[in-house]
Amino acid sequence: MALCDIGLIGLGTMGSALSLNIAEKGFDIAVWNRRTKVTHAFKAEAGELADKIIATETYEELIAALKSPRAIILMVPAGGPVDDQIAQLRPLLDPEDMIIDAGNANFHNTRTRAASGEPFIGIGVSGGEDGARHGPSIMGGGPKESWDSVAHILEAISAKYEGQPCATWMGPDGAGHFVKAVHNGIEYADMQMIAEVYGIMRDGMGMDAAAIGGVFEAWNKGPLQSYLIEISGEVAKAIDPKTGGAMLDAIVDAAGQKGTGRWTAIEAQHLAAPVPAIEAAVAARNLSSRRDARALGEELFGAAPKHLPHETLSIDTLEQALIAGKILCYAQGFVMLSAASEEFQWSLPLPAIAEVWREGCIIRSAMLNDMSEALTEDPERNLMFAPYFSDHLKKNHGALRQVVAQAALHGLAAPALLSGLSYFDTMRTARGTANMIQGQRDFFGRHSFVHIDGSEGQHGPWAD
Amino acid sequence: MALCDIGLIGLGTMGSALSLNIAEKGFDIAVWNRRTKVTHAFKAEAGELADKIIATETYEELIAALKSPRAIILMVPAGGPVDDQIAQLRPLLDPEDMIIDAGNANFHNTRTRAASGEPFIGIGVSGGEDGARHGPSIMGGGPKESWDSVAHILEAISAKYEGQPCATWMGPDGAGHFVKAVHNGIEYADMQMIAEVYGIMRDGMGMDAAAIGGVFEAWNKGPLQSYLIEISGEVAKAIDPKTGGAMLDAIVDAAGQKGTGRWTAIEAQHLAAPVPAIEAAVAARNLSSRRDARALGEELFGAAPKHLPHETLSIDTLEQALIAGKILCYAQGFVMLSAASEEFQWSLPLPAIAEVWREGCIIRSAMLNDMSEALTEDPERNLMFAPYFSDHLKKNHGALRQVVAQAALHGLAAPALLSGLSYFDTMRTARGTANMIQGQRDFFGRHSFVHIDGSEGQHGPWAD
Repeated sequence: MALCDIGLIGLGTMGSALSLNIAEKGFDIAVWNRRTKVTHAFKAEAGELADKIIATETYEELIAALKSPRAIILMVPAGGPVDDQIAQLRPLLDPEDMIIDAGNANFHNTRTRAASGEPFIGIGVSGGEDGARHGPSIMGGGPKESWDSVAHILEAISAKYEGQPCATWMGPDGAGHFVKAVHNGIEYADMQMIAEVYGIMRDGMGMDAAAIGGVFEAWNKGPLQSYLIEISGEVAKAIDPKTGGAMLDAIVDAAGQKGTGRWTAIEAQHLAAPVPAIEAAVAARNLSSRRDARALGEELFGAAPKHLPHETLSIDTLEQALIAGKILCYAQGFVMLSAASEEFQWSLPLPAIAEVWREGCIIRSAMLNDMSEALTEDPERNLMFAPYFSDHLKKNHGALRQVVAQAALHGLAAPALLSGLSYFDTMRTARGTANMIQGQRDFFGRHSFVHIDGSEGQHGPWAD
Repeated sequence: MALCDIGLIGLGTMGSALSLNIAEKGFDIAVWNRRTKVTHAFKAEAGELADKIIATETYEELIAALKSPRAIILMVPAGGPVDDQIAQLRPLLDPEDMIIDAGNANFHNTRTRAASGEPFIGIGVSGGEDGARHGPSIMGGGPKESWDSVAHILEAISAKYEGQPCATWMGPDGAGHFVKAVHNGIEYADMQMIAEVYGIMRDGMGMDAAAIGGVFEAWNKGPLQSYLIEISGEVAKAIDPKTGGAMLDAIVDAAGQKGTGRWTAIEAQHLAAPVPAIEAAVAARNLSSRRDARALGEELFGAAPKHLPHETLSIDTLEQALIAGKILCYAQGFVMLSAASEEFQWSLPLPAIAEVWREGCIIRSAMLNDMSEALTEDPERNLMFAPYFSDHLKKNHGALRQVVAQAALHGLAAPALLSGLSYFDTMRTARGTANMIQGQRDFFGRHSFVHIDGSEGQHGPWAD
């Protein structure tokens, strides 16, 4: 076997899947794992792809197996393990050899690592195990020439949207990992809104899981078509082998999280780019884990009278509300990307971000193609103001109002949908209410305000 | 004049006010400012208090003027300036001399500075200029013995609630500055909810500023009695000397912020202790500054049909909604304090925090006394479950529902009130909707879930 095209360190679930994907696309790959047994087992189980895989036992072997200049993918846990691998590899590599961090790194760390000046790129890989094996969405950051030197491999293994690879260079240093974090934040919000609509159907309309699954299935043929709606249908229709009832009804309502939604919320605060739908989703996951407190709350305040009066809300109204909520959530995400692009001088290609999310990743959806078109027209404009989406919002915000009002009246918790409507109403109100806040701040802290006649540094008569 | 009781560096607005307060309470104080002219002008303008003040021109003079062991307050901008002062002072001081940072430090920096082991305390001082001059609320952090050695001075200058000083040691290192940050976060949320209710009266009920001022004035005699409601009344009733109309109508609706609300939101994320009301308030301030986008939104979507049908909402309903919203906002803040107490092993005295906020600070209110009693009974319990507050919530959450529903239906942006209701409904729902999220996560990422039969690490049939 000739020298390999690329190396990979870390044969966990994602690393193994990615390695098989690379081999399957015709590249020779040298792999290494901390436990040598894992490395050999991986090759042994690779079937007909084993020919394309070299199992190596030492860094030296790994490095010797690669074409120069070398490229080595790290697929190890984010944080310390990445630094450890870099510290051990770098002294053995030639100056032009490249390390690729494909884990879920905090983009601040990617920026620090990139600052060494040695060839290093950070790539966000979305799509879970299945995506990594058969075609993920890949968001890269680092020196453009480093990306270019491996782009043919990353494009080959990536998902394709109408033949176009979902693997894109986003900008320098941490740009790729940042875009991946925002992807995950949007994923949180999208999932939360779906869960809220599910709750309204279950508790407000008394539908069973199978019927709800049917609704998601139907929605997946319309404007909401997306991977998350599709799998929500599958989840709702699945039968629990243990109970024979709906699987969904047998799952404890306490959601886990790996922290990327939280990172997104924190970075949005630093950037002063509000993402209330993502904040609502992160809060909802946190509160979901406080099951004892929630049970106490229900005992203390009584169960909410959740059932909606007959025909108060229709399935179509729910669909329209979800369309409006989803647009507002993505709009917030893209405003945040735009703010980061300016803050870090990344020149993020916003339309290309929407494009790279069209296939392979968890939030892939029909709507992202329309977002890419709207962002191509004007990347600086809030998506909610782009004609295609403002038309959708004009048509659907009334439904969102109905759903929010009914949820509020009947005790159905729907924090992300509520925050979406608040965002819409805030952004369509020319004269808001922050004049009261400015008055208060001037009253107690002499912070001053701007007068409507344009003069700055003004104080109220209370300051005399 | 004998040696002074205390020194102070930094004679800006807050430093000057605090120095006069100290002198007025009978302590001798030595002051120093970067610009000597300012120091002498300060003493010259101190009137009969000048006898208690020594104006010093050098660090050496300042130090020589103080009783040993010395205590020197820094009232300089947070961040670099504090580090600069410490670096210059410390070599000139004796090991037992103490530095007190009274600025708005980020508590992480206070923790770092405290780690040197030299006597150092960080105090949060709330109440604006007027508070600093006549009685602020003071939240201290650092070694208990260091606090004790200056407690008589800090208590003397602090606000008093029924004779009890509002100056309290909160715990080690950054505890005081942390409590101050959460105070400011709650302040953001409280102000935002007031602004939202103001907006509903203005846009939804067509009331003019003077009439709204009258409502706040009336509410200030009931359960909402607080400094912020009081000054909202004053602000609403004030006349603009320029236009002759209401001052409030002549203030531009773009709110400023100094970042402490944002810090609170970020720390809450790190602590996984949701504070959605604070997040909503920070987002509202951010979005208020995007005036051009909001004007575009109104043009594009049309002005909302804000006017509520006659008698849809009464002033009493608004008052009840605000009571409920306020309780939920404070409940979130105290849960966050409790989480921080555990995370940083501070053993924060939660009842004492409510007590120290009863006078002097911006969020002082009648309700804080009841909160202190509820927290004394059980500091670990979410305030919304304490009998006094759960009674209030039982009585008033219906009003909050009405207000949220009407705001939603008529396009009145009320993000903090909406988030408050979402929090309430989430925390009173034993069976939430996170089972859908867990199903989705297991579907796409094999994250597993807990089965209602108690078994962990389960997967849905889709994983087969």
